[in-house]
Amino acid sequence: ADAGRLVVRCPDRPGIVAVLSRLLADVGANITDSQQHSSDPTGGTFTLRLEFVLADLAERRRQLEGALDLLARQWQMTWRLTEAAHRPTVAIFVSRTDHVLQELIYRVRAGDLRADITAVVSNHPDLEPVARTAGIPFHHVPVTPGTKEQAEARALEIVGDADLVVLARYMQIVSADFCGRFPERLINIHHSFLPAFVGANPYQAAHDRGVKLIGATAHYVTPELDAGPIIEQEVARVDHRATVEDMRRVGRYVERQVLAQAVTWHVEDRVIVEGDRTIVFA
Amino acid sequence: ADAGRLVVRCPDRPGIVAVLSRLLADVGANITDSQQHSSDPTGGTFTLRLEFVLADLAERRRQLEGALDLLARQWQMTWRLTEAAHRPTVAIFVSRTDHVLQELIYRVRAGDLRADITAVVSNHPDLEPVARTAGIPFHHVPVTPGTKEQAEARALEIVGDADLVVLARYMQIVSADFCGRFPERLINIHHSFLPAFVGANPYQAAHDRGVKLIGATAHYVTPELDAGPIIEQEVARVDHRATVEDMRRVGRYVERQVLAQAVTWHVEDRVIVEGDRTIVFA
Amino acid sequence: ADAGRLVVRCPDRPGIVAVLSRLLADVGANITDSQQHSSDPTGGTFTLRLEFVLADLAERRRQLEGALDLLARQWQMTWRLTEAAHRPTVAIFVSRTDHVLQELIYRVRAGDLRADITAVVSNHPDLEPVARTAGIPFHHVPVTPGTKEQAEARALEIVGDADLVVLARYMQIVSADFCGRFPERLINIHHSFLPAFVGANPYQAAHDRGVKLIGATAHYVTPELDAGPIIEQEVARVDHRATVEDMRRVGRYVERQVLAQAVTWHVEDRVIVEGDRTIVFA
Amino acid sequence: ADAGRLVVRCPDRPGIVAVLSRLLADVGANITDSQQHSSDPTGGTFTLRLEFVLADLAERRRQLEGALDLLARQWQMTWRLTEAAHRPTVAIFVSRTDHVLQELIYRVRAGDLRADITAVVSNHPDLEPVARTAGIPFHHVPVTPGTKEQAEARALEIVGDADLVVLARYMQIVSADFCGRFPERLINIHHSFLPAFVGANPYQAAHDRGVKLIGATAHYVTPELDAGPIIEQEVARVDHRATVEDMRRVGRYVERQVLAQAVTWHVEDRVIVEGDRTIVFA
Repeated sequence: ADAGRLVVRCPDRPGIVAVLSRLLADVGANITDSQQHSSDPTGGTFTLRLEFVLADLAERRRQLEGALDLLARQWQMTWRLTEAAHRPTVAIFVSRTDHVLQELIYRVRAGDLRADITAVVSNHPDLEPVARTAGIPFHHVPVTPGTKEQAEARALEIVGDADLVVLARYMQIVSADFCGRFPERLINIHHSFLPAFVGANPYQAAHDRGVKLIGATAHYVTPELDAGPIIEQEVARVDHRATVEDMRRVGRYVERQVLAQAVTWHVEDRVIVEGDRTIVFA
Repeated sequence: ADAGRLVVRCPDRPGIVAVLSRLLADVGANITDSQQHSSDPTGGTFTLRLEFVLADLAERRRQLEGALDLLARQWQMTWRLTEAAHRPTVAIFVSRTDHVLQELIYRVRAGDLRADITAVVSNHPDLEPVARTAGIPFHHVPVTPGTKEQAEARALEIVGDADLVVLARYMQIVSADFCGRFPERLINIHHSFLPAFVGANPYQAAHDRGVKLIGATAHYVTPELDAGPIIEQEVARVDHRATVEDMRRVGRYVERQVLAQAVTWHVEDRVIVEGDRTIVFA
Repeated sequence: ADAGRLVVRCPDRPGIVAVLSRLLADVGANITDSQQHSSDPTGGTFTLRLEFVLADLAERRRQLEGALDLLARQWQMTWRLTEAAHRPTVAIFVSRTDHVLQELIYRVRAGDLRADITAVVSNHPDLEPVARTAGIPFHHVPVTPGTKEQAEARALEIVGDADLVVLARYMQIVSADFCGRFPERLINIHHSFLPAFVGANPYQAAHDRGVKLIGATAHYVTPELDAGPIIEQEVARVDHRATVEDMRRVGRYVERQVLAQAVTWHVEDRVIVEGDRTIVFA
Repeated sequence: ADAGRLVVRCPDRPGIVAVLSRLLADVGANITDSQQHSSDPTGGTFTLRLEFVLADLAERRRQLEGALDLLARQWQMTWRLTEAAHRPTVAIFVSRTDHVLQELIYRVRAGDLRADITAVVSNHPDLEPVARTAGIPFHHVPVTPGTKEQAEARALEIVGDADLVVLARYMQIVSADFCGRFPERLINIHHSFLPAFVGANPYQAAHDRGVKLIGATAHYVTPELDAGPIIEQEVARVDHRATVEDMRRVGRYVERQVLAQAVTWHVEDRVIVEGDRTIVFA
């Protein structure tokens, strides 16, 4: 039997779970996991994520889609159906530091992150060897204040129809237009526990403030800097001995963990944006 | 509307979620949370925990129970229906240390643990003032090698029909008979990360072994010592400076957290025993 | 033998450790713990904290003080000598929530926090029973916009010469003058991971921002709101299901842990303020 | 100025710190970090680790060594003096899984682990490409029950005079003789929270026991299986959904973190074996 995932969203009212589970039972699917969330018990939005197994899912997909379309009209429902065998494509933007890129490459190869990295894009040539060793096309797209627009245009060409774009310590601010091309599928890692230390040089700011924990935040990118919906955050302890450089070093291990986790959840359809926040069916 | 919980278990086969969610929809209940687990996708046991809201739950309980009985026969299903307003009763056994008892008392009073502590039983008189201050009847039931049987008989009388019995650092081994009276509703806190350091004096053993983390484990009690299904575990870091006494002190804060969490989950019907393990719908 | 602590600070230059350890050796003290920190290897400030045992410390204290005064002039050194047997006095300010106060009371009684709570001051009468049960004088000092100055004057009288003042979820902003009375000995618990969510209602703000971890911060109070040197921080994980009320509930356990830890370190002379940051010899 | 480290051990008696810090001051060294531990305040063993900076350390090393030899006799003291610039050599033993090896390679290249990996030895050929990509000689030394002795002899030749040997998920039990060649410089990563789940297949055992946290332990290897002094441990949370395979996957990230941390501390002279336990000056 093939594994599939179904994510639906609709206004919350009694009966929706019964209807959807009946539909899956009728086609012979067995639900293996189910998670749901209601933004508000009265008048909110209902979100449901189902995992199921169904023989010949690829062939019977159209039948299922037809039934879901019907329900979508009746229940004002949006839905997304994914075959677990599908491997989404990911384009990764980096600058000069490789720790997050290395981690994503490792997790893909280890089978822990089911996706294909189709391109590495960078405003610096430094990480070409890392990409090349992993057999991933590397694209050097320099960015200067005067050429930013062209650079983004070039980057868009390279990214093509990738399912997901990841800013893996890409030290450039992308334009609102660029963000708009990848709604809810452009993920950034910010090297602080947001909303603390928005913007540049957060480890210096964290050191100056004398915090006892440093953090990292993976979030969807929106036009407002470091303000998009948060997917995952983690922290690590530091003490008074930690210099800014020590914080950077410790932080690297937090950053790679947080971004890899966020990307993994995203490609498994576990993250749903709801306003400024995310639902994560971990 | 009133809040209710339904936990069902049955052999795993397609359609059970559809049937149960239809039943709840038909009586007008809105499912507010749903978690499920299958011990094995093929031929295993399916467990489902639903939270729902339903107007006049108390009055319509019988109707719901009748329908569930019907399904129970069709699906070889066991079920438990609870009104969230119900406050289970808890009897707590202690010896001389009060940290776990204090924590349970605090959480009940803070409203974080929805239960009523109906008795504190101890083989020592030391904690009577703690119980009295909290307005809980205290029962001193001394235990000596020769009087253990009578002591347990006396304890059983005191416990009566309490919904849950908690051994909150009760430094006595209870008999297999006693365990048998409280299947899946007798919880102990062991002051180690089980299965490491079974038995007496685990902090001394942890110190001798030179571990870098100490732990605590809340588990259901079965006749075999420290071997019952684990509900919750947590650890805390220690270093080479920690004496056995330091470990005891640090451990107290882990123990109280772990046991309070386990008891809270239990009284919210979130813990289901499956063989030697537990499902925890946290 | 009696236990003592010595904390010294001076400009960093070679030899200071040799001189101080020689001094202690000469009086017959055995150093049982030693921690040091240099703000900058070249031209920074050196901080040293020693624990030692010395027979008849109380009687020989004057001798030791004389020798330290001599060194202080030679090395531009400040120092603080404490007998471990000394129990500092603490005044605690609260409003209506008792979780942090209860924790401090518990830790004092358990012997984990070696201090004496000499007064509980509150702008509300609610927690009088908590203080009374613990045998601590309770002082109701209402605060209104018009009477703030008088209220602080009254509070100062009550506090008297307490060694430490703790704001244990005291929902009032204290004046710059009040802060000035307790330099480096006025500790507040803020219910967020500072510098995120400065000011009122941080759990609401954390919820709106959709953070995945909530935190608490214990810091010395300075005239600028929530900007004083941080002593300790901790976080707890929350997910999309957590309401603001859930965050408050989870947060209570983080707050009590963080503040109790900070106060414990403070009374053991483990916290040294260095500019906007703290050295914590944990 | 050059950075150096000095670790000394001797019977604990007053004056040793004074003497050593005087020695360093006299040669013009500035102590930048100092940590100490006494196994027992009366009659125990005293351990001191100093970091210092000293101009022309390499040239003045002999002078320092002479002075230390003198003190060693007076104080029954053992000592180890290291120039921070020195990069220890490490031989790594693996079998088929690469996650820990990859992590060590990454940390060396990132500069977080100051050591040189001089050989990768394996009983399987699988990881040759990983070693080759990193520019490290790979040695395939098959092990069968009948050839174990010869295999170890061959391995010893390869290791040569490496400063440290690391068993990075090497699925073979090494002989007592092999252990004896590398006293306190043979480190293993065991994939459980020791002493729970000694021996083979700990994730299966952890799953069967139903633990809620899985762990990993880095320890010095001694002839008794999984019983050597523990250097570092860490855990990760799992729930009832985790299969044995899930635990293995989660565990990989704990294992690599724990072993990398232990190796880093070891090469920085931060780990001192004391009986069955370790002192870790982290």
